[in-house]
Amino acid sequence: MSQAKAAPSVTPFCLDAWSQHHLREVEQALSDWVTDETPVGLDHGAPAALVAAMRYAVLDGGKRLRPLLVLAAYESVSALTQCNGRAAAVRAACAVELIHAYSLVHDDLPCMDNDVLRRGKPTVHVQFGEASALLAGDALQALAFELLTPLDDSVAPATQARLCALLSRAAGSAGMAGGQAIDLASVGKPLTERQLREMHQLKTGALLQCSVLMGAQCAEAPMPIVRALQEYGGAIGLAFQVVDDILDVTADSATLGKTAGKDACNDKPTYVSLLGLQASRQHAQDLLTQAIAALNDGGLADAPALHALADMVVNRAN
Amino acid sequence: MSQAKAAPSVTPFCLDAWSQHHLREVEQALSDWVTDETPVGLDHGAPAALVAAMRYAVLDGGKRLRPLLVLAAYESVSALTQCNGRAAAVRAACAVELIHAYSLVHDDLPCMDNDVLRRGKPTVHVQFGEASALLAGDALQALAFELLTPLDDSVAPATQARLCALLSRAAGSAGMAGGQAIDLASVGKPLTERQLREMHQLKTGALLQCSVLMGAQCAEAPMPIVRALQEYGGAIGLAFQVVDDILDVTADSATLGKTAGKDACNDKPTYVSLLGLQASRQHAQDLLTQAIAALNDGGLADAPALHALADMVVNRAN
Repeated sequence: MSQAKAAPSVTPFCLDAWSQHHLREVEQALSDWVTDETPVGLDHGAPAALVAAMRYAVLDGGKRLRPLLVLAAYESVSALTQCNGRAAAVRAACAVELIHAYSLVHDDLPCMDNDVLRRGKPTVHVQFGEASALLAGDALQALAFELLTPLDDSVAPATQARLCALLSRAAGSAGMAGGQAIDLASVGKPLTERQLREMHQLKTGALLQCSVLMGAQCAEAPMPIVRALQEYGGAIGLAFQVVDDILDVTADSATLGKTAGKDACNDKPTYVSLLGLQASRQHAQDLLTQAIAALNDGGLADAPALHALADMVVNRAN
Repeated sequence: MSQAKAAPSVTPFCLDAWSQHHLREVEQALSDWVTDETPVGLDHGAPAALVAAMRYAVLDGGKRLRPLLVLAAYESVSALTQCNGRAAAVRAACAVELIHAYSLVHDDLPCMDNDVLRRGKPTVHVQFGEASALLAGDALQALAFELLTPLDDSVAPATQARLCALLSRAAGSAGMAGGQAIDLASVGKPLTERQLREMHQLKTGALLQCSVLMGAQCAEAPMPIVRALQEYGGAIGLAFQVVDDILDVTADSATLGKTAGKDACNDKPTYVSLLGLQASRQHAQDLLTQAIAALNDGGLADAPALHALADMVVNRAN
């Protein structure tokens, strides 16, 4: 009998297969939810032109790292707590991606980074005009909170409330938007490593960390697990940005799907400009070690998707 | 004994006094909540420069019609249901004002209306730059959902969830942002009255209607009351825009606190351009009658603040 029972940790985990499987669900859900169909209880649907810009901004592009983190955290914790919050987790996965997508649309606008290429395509304002890009971003942020608050009983109200609390704080002035404001103010200014870290913790880290915490929330994670995932999310959130800074100088635009070398060109402080390339690479590896240690110490040693995603964040090529 | 007991409905209601009393609470709450203090549970506060732009956009200005509608609806319904949701109602009042404030900041940007004067002051992008105005608007939207989801137990989770559901839908692509997109696409185009009405129902009506529904939610209104307030909110929401169109041609910039005559100048379709001034005025009065009838028929005949606010919306001078 012991021969027939395969230990799950022996099964080799394939991140590509896992990701493809989960992304099919996310892509379909995003396509279903970013729509101009009239929602139940409302008189009007969304205007088609606005929805076209929103769909362009969201669909068929991106690594979907944040949704994958939500689902990986949910599944890892759910295996421990036996709580079924999958419907909530899929909504959270899509909601965090909408926030990410809106931030890119606004970040690319002429008054911000003025970028014309994103995910290998013309940016939203190039394709639809500045005003439509502005409104599409605004509407995507609102839609994120719509997704978290379905009017049916598919997600418990307390979970809806907690997910909105997590996402709004990660997106707002003490999170992503705050980090972008620091970024904006720091162009051409020397920053200490501490200042650079704080900027990135807000600008990129907050939303990545929020992703794992939302997944944990959907599986009703106990506090020690939440703390472990908070540390994991903080480490990979920062690592993501360190690696971004490295790739900005080592990769080309075709590989990145966006304009390479633009930070240096814009005279923005980066990890590479502050620490140099070699120390930046070491720093990213140290953060990976820290993220994995948080999982192992926090009772999530057997969470292959979370382990593999951390590795992917640090060792990715684009 | 019957002489000592004054009937409440006999007491004359003074909207000015009622508004002043309630606005003190709203102004203080907004000032407390739009802040760069580090929230509990987060590592960082919001960057001071971003918060300065957010405070400039929100504080010391505006009629605060939406917060007053939230509180009036809450108090009227609460008198019937005896439900105490005052803490939630104050949060809802501030949250809807943050959404309104962010929409003005973005609407004034050069790529939208390119307006330089708002509430008698330079617009946010004139004062702080375009990029900061963009980010301040984004952060204000996120903050609205933060306010609705306090981490203490001051608001029941189910109420938090329902308030987020109402506000996100009113703000999003099938609400305010959708209406703005229609507005954007309709410049220089002839619209039918139906198309104009749909645009305004989304652009302005959705958030005004949402205000009364959020107030009702905080007092756990039964369904017949919700329906009455839905009709009331729909009627005054549309009336607000009809009156806006009238004032745009009849008032001067000093009275309005914003640039007068800009709709005609921008070749935007308005009620006045479609129906003429006299018929527009009659239309506004009809909507007022409709709003009051909804209250009276829906069990809210004794809701003096809601009656007076409807009257103020239609008969205001700015």
